[in-house]
Amino acid sequence: MPRWESDAQGRLERAALDLFEAQGFERTSVAQIAGAAGLKERSFYRYFPDKREVLFAGDALEAHLVAQVEAADPDLAPIEALLTALGNAEELFRPREYLLRRGRVIAANPALAERDLIKLAAVADALAPALERRGVEPGKARFVVDVVLAIHRRALPRWLAEPDTTLAQLLAEAAAELRGAVAPPAATPD
Amino acid sequence: MPRWESDAQGRLERAALDLFEAQGFERTSVAQIAGAAGLKERSFYRYFPDKREVLFAGDALEAHLVAQVEAADPDLAPIEALLTALGNAEELFRPREYLLRRGRVIAANPALAERDLIKLAAVADALAPALERRGVEPGKARFVVDVVLAIHRRALPRWLAEPDTTLAQLLAEAAAELRGAVAPPAATPD
Repeated sequence: MPRWESDAQGRLERAALDLFEAQGFERTSVAQIAGAAGLKERSFYRYFPDKREVLFAGDALEAHLVAQVEAADPDLAPIEALLTALGNAEELFRPREYLLRRGRVIAANPALAERDLIKLAAVADALAPALERRGVEPGKARFVVDVVLAIHRRALPRWLAEPDTTLAQLLAEAAAELRGAVAPPAATPD
Repeated sequence: MPRWESDAQGRLERAALDLFEAQGFERTSVAQIAGAAGLKERSFYRYFPDKREVLFAGDALEAHLVAQVEAADPDLAPIEALLTALGNAEELFRPREYLLRRGRVIAANPALAERDLIKLAAVADALAPALERRGVEPGKARFVVDVVLAIHRRALPRWLAEPDTTLAQLLAEAAAELRGAVAPPAATPD
């Protein structure tokens, strides 16, 4: 079972989400979050630089993805290396129910939605060099990362909504959908 | 020839870029930009809400793309409708030399780079409903928009770097590259 369920960081994340839902992000203070998690305010800052970041604890995920891409079979196509890394990251994710609630809180607050975009761009900035170290030309590396993030964005809501699925499975489905979407139009007689 | 070359908005955009390059974004004031463009400071605010926005005058582009997607041949695949709209937008873009310099100024300033991300997400938010009005399911519409923006991001630097190319041509090349990147791996014997 994930350590997240019991540690102080996880308690802070869950307490923050409860409070953001109940009274809104803006009206929640760090002191309230820490109090609800049974911690002192200064303990909060050991885990997160500010209130917003409590929703974006993703460094472990980024490091995991980079390491996976670097360790992947050198014969794997760049897009497959990334999709495999993402599919294998499922156990690092927070539980579905937490992610669904977190997504709603972020979507309801423009400043949080902007932060989400910026965090995603930072993940892309970290993943592209990992592909380059596999010999992929920089422009193409970034392109493949952007495409894989589009695939991930397509797969994630389905994975969250359907508990019997795996992320790897829904990533593969979205990749197949993409193949269909970019297929050249069938030749027609002039 | 584009009206942009001579109008007040264009003068402000070019004056701002000159100043941002010469002395940095942070150290440039709106009064300086207006003065360099031969205008009063209050005239600046008729065109832009703040200093940052002088680099992101993209509303005409967004409206053009949405209108083009809505007017596209109903038989066109969603991805083709978007790529065609983007390719036809070339004449709305600022001149290549301006765009190259603008890109460098934005890349050098994290706050501007964040604004650029947010503007791009706003374009995506406007384009996805345009595809939905063509009958595309919402999740798929957003997916296709994200993929097309990845294609655009791949094509744009090449178009800027190679004056003899058209954007439509480089979008088509990037789309072909994507087809290659997502092709299923060749079957190999077990």
